[in-house]
Amino acid sequence: MSPALSVDLFLYWLGIAAVAVNALTGVLDAQRKEMDLVGALLVGTATALGGGTVRDLLLDRNVFWVVDQTYLLTSFAAGALTFFIARRFNLPERLFLIPDAVGLALFTALGTQVALQWHAPWLVASLMGMTTGVVGGVLRDILCNDVPLIFRKGELYASAAWLGALTVIGLGQLGVTPMSAAWGGMAVTLLLRLLAMRYHITLPAFRSR
Amino acid sequence: MSPALSVDLFLYWLGIAAVAVNALTGVLDAQRKEMDLVGALLVGTATALGGGTVRDLLLDRNVFWVVDQTYLLTSFAAGALTFFIARRFNLPERLFLIPDAVGLALFTALGTQVALQWHAPWLVASLMGMTTGVVGGVLRDILCNDVPLIFRKGELYASAAWLGALTVIGLGQLGVTPMSAAWGGMAVTLLLRLLAMRYHITLPAFRSR
Amino acid sequence: MSPALSVDLFLYWLGIAAVAVNALTGVLDAQRKEMDLVGALLVGTATALGGGTVRDLLLDRNVFWVVDQTYLLTSFAAGALTFFIARRFNLPERLFLIPDAVGLALFTALGTQVALQWHAPWLVASLMGMTTGVVGGVLRDILCNDVPLIFRKGELYASAAWLGALTVIGLGQLGVTPMSAAWGGMAVTLLLRLLAMRYHITLPAFRSR
Repeated sequence: MSPALSVDLFLYWLGIAAVAVNALTGVLDAQRKEMDLVGALLVGTATALGGGTVRDLLLDRNVFWVVDQTYLLTSFAAGALTFFIARRFNLPERLFLIPDAVGLALFTALGTQVALQWHAPWLVASLMGMTTGVVGGVLRDILCNDVPLIFRKGELYASAAWLGALTVIGLGQLGVTPMSAAWGGMAVTLLLRLLAMRYHITLPAFRSR
Repeated sequence: MSPALSVDLFLYWLGIAAVAVNALTGVLDAQRKEMDLVGALLVGTATALGGGTVRDLLLDRNVFWVVDQTYLLTSFAAGALTFFIARRFNLPERLFLIPDAVGLALFTALGTQVALQWHAPWLVASLMGMTTGVVGGVLRDILCNDVPLIFRKGELYASAAWLGALTVIGLGQLGVTPMSAAWGGMAVTLLLRLLAMRYHITLPAFRSR
Repeated sequence: MSPALSVDLFLYWLGIAAVAVNALTGVLDAQRKEMDLVGALLVGTATALGGGTVRDLLLDRNVFWVVDQTYLLTSFAAGALTFFIARRFNLPERLFLIPDAVGLALFTALGTQVALQWHAPWLVASLMGMTTGVVGGVLRDILCNDVPLIFRKGELYASAAWLGALTVIGLGQLGVTPMSAAWGGMAVTLLLRLLAMRYHITLPAFRSR
């Protein structure tokens, strides 16, 4: 297998995994709103495909799930499985924050690599990676009528994604292979996010009045 | 007139009709929020053009109302007419649910046919049909600050659209002409939606706690 | 410098100015929600780039900030500057309405000119100008969980933008240079908006019940 093909294959499976994990978080969130099966699948699918769709539209690429039906099938399968498991077992409410962080890390690294392959300038690529990572979750939170996680206080969310994206770009600049750069970026995003959730790390904010 | 042209013409007029009906529902909803003429026309236009716009962006087609001004004129004319009629007569609040169901049926069948003509895979085409059908109404409800109809309980909405889209695709597979397939799909969506509204049919949902 | 180049250059700097002003309003609004630095920069960037992004997607152009990193840098720089100034000094809450009106005027004239250069029909071009003008502010208000300015009563907002866009188009039809037409449109939008804010001018609305 040529190295180039191998990277493409790696990014492909990364995408499938990210879609499955994000569909899961969407359906879990829909559970709390007592949506029915179709509603939950829709929220799951919007969560799974939203970020990559925005990225592809902005880069003027073919939208990834329109040309390859596998993504949609993955999203539906992961969503339906989650639906029936979550219906049977009473899962703790905060459980979905871990897959959400994993999905954020996967999609951010993936989106950054795709933008770089598309020869976007680095600042644009980093924003595109962050966008791919966060948009799905924002859509989910809007559809479920929650305050988007991204705007809750005391939790690095967009920042974790952005630093992960910058890590991917920086490692690539240092000559690291795209695959290792992606793993590095994912580790940074996931670690920052988990640490922020655990210790409520914050950035400088406007003073309260 | 060649058969191919005739289908295109049919889809064209279907689009015009769907735009007019959806503009009407948007303006009726804006009435309840006491918006002014321009605000109501904007909500009406977003409702009328939203679904098809998302479909065209995802399929990377020319956005339908950008290349042909007729759609915009139709939306404005239908919207302004509705505005002045609704201002004069006190229409019952639930009246707008019938045209909403008609608009859903028209746009869903139309969106599915457009996606099929674009050679989208069948699952993608069905989702595209549903998207064309529901996005306008979701935009309207968000702009008017309502809970989107699509997420209210006890009313098949997305499901009715989806089954209609699948009907269009299935009939096409059975060799039915595109025009008859579209009529079949519209009938399924409209019937399901009206029955669901009347008898509060529901899908399996998560249990309440 | 050829006249054609000069218009392009004029539109370029108009875009940079509009991005800076809109980023400022986004960050000022984020201040009231006590967001942190990254959250505020994101809201500022969405405000600054949202309208033009929607316009470019609808016209199937390259998204302006994806091909030229300058816009993103401008948005970040203007946003960060605003963040630290607003943190230090207690700015009056209504202050951000003036730059918001300026940003509306700049982006509306710019969006109209871009759509005309793209040979969009006049009604489409006027809507595109209005969209470029208002979408950024709507995104900002949604992200900050405010009722969008565009839908508040007693304040011409979309109407001011629309009349400005129609002015740009009308002046162009009368043979005025694109640059003067843009200035004319900006003046109309800004004046209408400021007058409406001062004197609470309203359009015919649905009666209250």
